Amino acid sequence: MTLSVPAPLVPPARVLLGPGPSDVAPSVLRALAAPTVGHLDPYFLGVMDEVRAMLRAVFGTKNTITMPMSGTGSAGMETLFVNLIEPGDRVLVGVHGVFGGRMAEVARRCGAEVVTVSAPWGREIDADAMRAAAKGQRFDAIAMVHAETSTGVLTPLAPFRALADELGALFLVDAVTSLGGVPIDVDAHGVDAIYSGTQKCLSCPPGLAPVSLSERAMAKLKSRKIRPQSWYLDLELIGSYWGSERAYHHTAPINMLYGIHEALRLALEEGLDARFARHARHAKALAAGLQALGLELPVPEGSRLPPLTLVAIPEGIEDAPVRKALLQRYGIEIGGGLGDFKGRAWRIGLMGSGSTPRNVLLCLGALHGTLAAMGWKAKGDPIAAAIALLG
Amino acid sequence: MTLSVPAPLVPPARVLLGPGPSDVAPSVLRALAAPTVGHLDPYFLGVMDEVRAMLRAVFGTKNTITMPMSGTGSAGMETLFVNLIEPGDRVLVGVHGVFGGRMAEVARRCGAEVVTVSAPWGREIDADAMRAAAKGQRFDAIAMVHAETSTGVLTPLAPFRALADELGALFLVDAVTSLGGVPIDVDAHGVDAIYSGTQKCLSCPPGLAPVSLSERAMAKLKSRKIRPQSWYLDLELIGSYWGSERAYHHTAPINMLYGIHEALRLALEEGLDARFARHARHAKALAAGLQALGLELPVPEGSRLPPLTLVAIPEGIEDAPVRKALLQRYGIEIGGGLGDFKGRAWRIGLMGSGSTPRNVLLCLGALHGTLAAMGWKAKGDPIAAAIALLG
Repeated sequence: MTLSVPAPLVPPARVLLGPGPSDVAPSVLRALAAPTVGHLDPYFLGVMDEVRAMLRAVFGTKNTITMPMSGTGSAGMETLFVNLIEPGDRVLVGVHGVFGGRMAEVARRCGAEVVTVSAPWGREIDADAMRAAAKGQRFDAIAMVHAETSTGVLTPLAPFRALADELGALFLVDAVTSLGGVPIDVDAHGVDAIYSGTQKCLSCPPGLAPVSLSERAMAKLKSRKIRPQSWYLDLELIGSYWGSERAYHHTAPINMLYGIHEALRLALEEGLDARFARHARHAKALAAGLQALGLELPVPEGSRLPPLTLVAIPEGIEDAPVRKALLQRYGIEIGGGLGDFKGRAWRIGLMGSGSTPRNVLLCLGALHGTLAAMGWKAKGDPIAAAIALLG
Repeated sequence: MTLSVPAPLVPPARVLLGPGPSDVAPSVLRALAAPTVGHLDPYFLGVMDEVRAMLRAVFGTKNTITMPMSGTGSAGMETLFVNLIEPGDRVLVGVHGVFGGRMAEVARRCGAEVVTVSAPWGREIDADAMRAAAKGQRFDAIAMVHAETSTGVLTPLAPFRALADELGALFLVDAVTSLGGVPIDVDAHGVDAIYSGTQKCLSCPPGLAPVSLSERAMAKLKSRKIRPQSWYLDLELIGSYWGSERAYHHTAPINMLYGIHEALRLALEEGLDARFARHARHAKALAAGLQALGLELPVPEGSRLPPLTLVAIPEGIEDAPVRKALLQRYGIEIGGGLGDFKGRAWRIGLMGSGSTPRNVLLCLGALHGTLAAMGWKAKGDPIAAAIALLG
């Protein structure tokens, strides 16, 4: 095994305007580099308590079981299903993008009988369509994606609690690209279980999955006939570490928890309402600029997810060369399309620390420059259109 | 939801001499704070390739499937079992501490029929005892803990490959507290699947779980009748992201991967043989000092795990006050006992960057001072005893 030892890393300073990870605030990066302490150190137990309290505030919940799981957002998704679903349970899943499909797949791997209800990619999931598909039968859980990262669609939560009640089901929500960027209000919406990631609107590097579970969800967990198939994500065991027992389960990712502590602090210092308004304002300015450029936004205005904007790739323009030029010439990352939108759309994220007037103008200018070099003629003045809305 | 926003964290600078996390090198902490790039950024794909190449060198393997999973060491354990074990598979597990017991539990949650073979805590697991328990029957996998973090026992790997061959079984190994601190030589020992953590002898903060799987293990995975019960840890899907396809699975924990890159770099720059010798030398010096203090080491000399030393708590001395005094007065963390050793032993780690002459003397001095304040009389001169072996 001879290997020449690689040089130390000197990562480039990108501007991250894709679907995540998003730009990380300097104080969050600094927090990651603070000295590691032990996972049972009294100091660290205090950090955990503060993280939980701040997460509850950002989720809008009083749920006791509210904490970051030691994995990325997808581990949060798996956490909900392995804990709340038993073999033979019936789960109704709304699918209007990659992540609804993934929930259905994860539920199947838990032995659930899964019924999926589809909506076109780029449109909201409709509670009435799910109601019709349920045919009045009993379901153990319904699951939907609040903010579809693959399409940039935001679906309001309000109609789904009533549906869950009619079916006797738990109400499960994917909030990966909404937490910290748009209102969620877990308790007000009667959400039973929700998960998110850190690398979107919280602007912390990827690696943790905040989750929150209602009393009703915890009652289902406690009444399970067999133990969850995952030991690593077993919420009863993990709850004993995060709770007053402080029972050792696994070694918590200490420095990542420093990072989310600082990211949550920044969100609460800004104020959630101000933060949501900022995301909405910059998304509108970006949209106006993109339309002035002559580009189309496939998602209807009322369904757009402020942190993530879907842009159709116009006829005659190739996907990859544009993204490559943005990255190489301007150091800007935007996202390609997934699934139905692969090669047909870009995804532009203005999330967390990255949702700034500067990034709106930078993105529009760089995209304009890149498309112009490929022969595209702008319809109007994208910068002027954006400025008018930036206030 | 009114919450007064907590102050920014200012974690104390501990000396981490417990069972992990271990002291993190300054350059690793700095690496964590480097600018986050996208998980599909060409720059990051290069980082991934270097991490894999370095991990192969540290594991001593040419296995293609060698990479860090996006979770802590326990996620590495779960990765092996959910991918390699199907319901009804028969698994033979050696149990001589917490982590062998945990492997048995995780295997059961995968639907395996588990046969456990116990050895006393503080002693090695015996391949012949496992052979006897197998009664010549077919097993799909045998699993053992190379370095038992709960007891500080190192069990040589050599006898287990022959046993696996006799039983037609895959050979699974827990190397959480050995990787980077003692030789492993995955290929030479015919290990089929192995996992570790980053927060022990690699001296990177917790949050990643390096794993490596042989061709034989991958053949078992590919011939599964049903898909792994975990989507998050599904190695076929994850292999497509880490492999040449670069297919999106989940968002990799970018900054943690910067950290392990630097930690692996430091290990290879030092040279593995020099690093193993360093761990062995400092463990011997610590042991001599502890014995000069009049303390007993429950693990026989030939079975001791250099990175982690088990020390019996002497008659008349209470566990918690000693650890509290070490932490409060000297900022030193040592570990309490687990399971059979709870309240009866301490665990002192000299791992990775923390395995230094300075920490040997510091630990002995602080323990001497703390015990003396509780009326303990040292048998000899612990510092002199250690110095004699530090060279």
